[in-house]
Amino acid sequence: MPSLRVGIVGAGGETGGSIVNGLLEAGDFDVVALVRPASASKPANTALKQRGVEIRPIDLSGSQDAMVDALKDLEVVISAVSAGEQLAQIPLATATKAAGVKRFLPCAFITVIPPGGVQGLRDEKEHVYNHIKQLSLPYTIVDVGWWYQISFPELPSGKIDYAIGFKGQTIAGDGNVPNAITDLRDIGRYVAKIIVDDRTLNKYVFVYNELWKPNDIYSLLEKLSGEKLERKYTSRETFEAQIKDADEKMANGATDFLTHVQKVTAQYLISWGIRGDNTPEYAKYLGYLTSKDLYPDFNFKDYEEYIKEVLDGKAKGVYAELRELQKQMSAAQK
Amino acid sequence: MPSLRVGIVGAGGETGGSIVNGLLEAGDFDVVALVRPASASKPANTALKQRGVEIRPIDLSGSQDAMVDALKDLEVVISAVSAGEQLAQIPLATATKAAGVKRFLPCAFITVIPPGGVQGLRDEKEHVYNHIKQLSLPYTIVDVGWWYQISFPELPSGKIDYAIGFKGQTIAGDGNVPNAITDLRDIGRYVAKIIVDDRTLNKYVFVYNELWKPNDIYSLLEKLSGEKLERKYTSRETFEAQIKDADEKMANGATDFLTHVQKVTAQYLISWGIRGDNTPEYAKYLGYLTSKDLYPDFNFKDYEEYIKEVLDGKAKGVYAELRELQKQMSAAQK
Repeated sequence: MPSLRVGIVGAGGETGGSIVNGLLEAGDFDVVALVRPASASKPANTALKQRGVEIRPIDLSGSQDAMVDALKDLEVVISAVSAGEQLAQIPLATATKAAGVKRFLPCAFITVIPPGGVQGLRDEKEHVYNHIKQLSLPYTIVDVGWWYQISFPELPSGKIDYAIGFKGQTIAGDGNVPNAITDLRDIGRYVAKIIVDDRTLNKYVFVYNELWKPNDIYSLLEKLSGEKLERKYTSRETFEAQIKDADEKMANGATDFLTHVQKVTAQYLISWGIRGDNTPEYAKYLGYLTSKDLYPDFNFKDYEEYIKEVLDGKAKGVYAELRELQKQMSAAQK
Repeated sequence: MPSLRVGIVGAGGETGGSIVNGLLEAGDFDVVALVRPASASKPANTALKQRGVEIRPIDLSGSQDAMVDALKDLEVVISAVSAGEQLAQIPLATATKAAGVKRFLPCAFITVIPPGGVQGLRDEKEHVYNHIKQLSLPYTIVDVGWWYQISFPELPSGKIDYAIGFKGQTIAGDGNVPNAITDLRDIGRYVAKIIVDDRTLNKYVFVYNELWKPNDIYSLLEKLSGEKLERKYTSRETFEAQIKDADEKMANGATDFLTHVQKVTAQYLISWGIRGDNTPEYAKYLGYLTSKDLYPDFNFKDYEEYIKEVLDGKAKGVYAELRELQKQMSAAQK
């Protein structure tokens, strides 16, 4: 059987990187990284090439014909564009349809959130999903829960700061709302199964490893580290004030990344931490299939094992650029 | 087994009337018509009462508490509000959730149309659906195809004018796009099955009787009537110009019903007549279950039999108020 040829946009990102790893590990795919023309010879792409990935330039804001040419030998196209590039998927989806691609995975890959005002990033994705549906483009929408990698706070000793996604986390609401979490490294392994599974065609799939309440994560970290954590709780009203503040800054012309992060983070925390959207029950209500039902034998990373890795200094931080930015901002404020 | 208590908003409309008939015919339901306080003693509601329907006042723009009180003994709430009242369902859905109702059928009951700009009425419904989903309110969305009753043109002899929904119909596109059609009178009979069916909970259901291409409907009518029909075809560009014209009138302050009808009709015709949205294949792609799969033995009205009824003078026109308005406009223009 010839390998399935899979194109991926955003192979250099956190999610895209996990997907490339998952596809290469599965071994059944010819992986094509669809990269900005200017990025084709960057070191990260050279490294991908050495791992057997074809590097193919595509300009998402360029001509439709050129995009169709770049896509027409692909059987699956996966988009893992960055948060700010969601609407660039509109012409990408149009070209993917014209190229006769058999399945498109738009950039979903977030927690379960209903559309219509709960979270701005989710609503941008909805525009893309509506466009896909209007095209009758075969699709699968894969949401992935909250990542292990950004699920835990720093310790007073500072010994796990190296692995912290966002410093200064607080607990949303009362901390007793279950939240579905997934090891970022498992996402690509799930995707490798989903894209060859007829049951997932034209469906929403919710991928997750385990359900954890924030309070229980704090307790686990205390138990395994022997350190005592301060628990700061943040109310819905406080998050709503943060959203309002970000909206006002943006209305006054702010376009900086951190203002966007402020808003999106507060909306995320209301959604999974207080509303409780990010659970398999709610996902099923919304029409999702779940990884537990589809792949009951999937060998996923255990969360407690992951936290031990973190404490052993063996984990890898995520969002390095964001952490660097946060560090610079914090230094500038001192 | 005690009867299921079902409330219906809009029992006096075309769809609502079919639903009341279907529920009463099934015999398993206590039917409660939820009516405007000012309408409770109108002749139409008195007639419903004589058929065993409870008439219960509800004010959709009134207090939540009063609405919850009016809904709390109901197991199912069905909304068949008019086209202009879609957003009044937002507080209705909130109250339905608070009242602990086990299933809500929002006012869908149109053709299959994807959300996101294809048709304005569909997009208003999407706001309501998003609100329902954010509430975790158990729901079923029932779309019903295009009605038999508005599917055919008038004859040159004028003998079926009595039954014509919209006069001056033309054929969208080339007239060869299949369109799913349903006898308005069957809708309530389908709904009576759907609301007691666990398979349809939190699902979209597409109800239809038969698939017909407009050209074949013209041929059928010619064959059965012996009259010759002129076939006027309208292109997508013409419909788009009609939409643009209506948009401009509305931008200039027009709020009249016919301008809205002009736009919505053109959007409908592009959707089912040219895009081909209103088919079981597309509905399934969008995630709908279909009446054919759910109820393969459903005894529906045959379309050819229906057209014979029309020719025999035994059919009933629909949208009497709209037809009257159209007649007055036409007389005023002479």
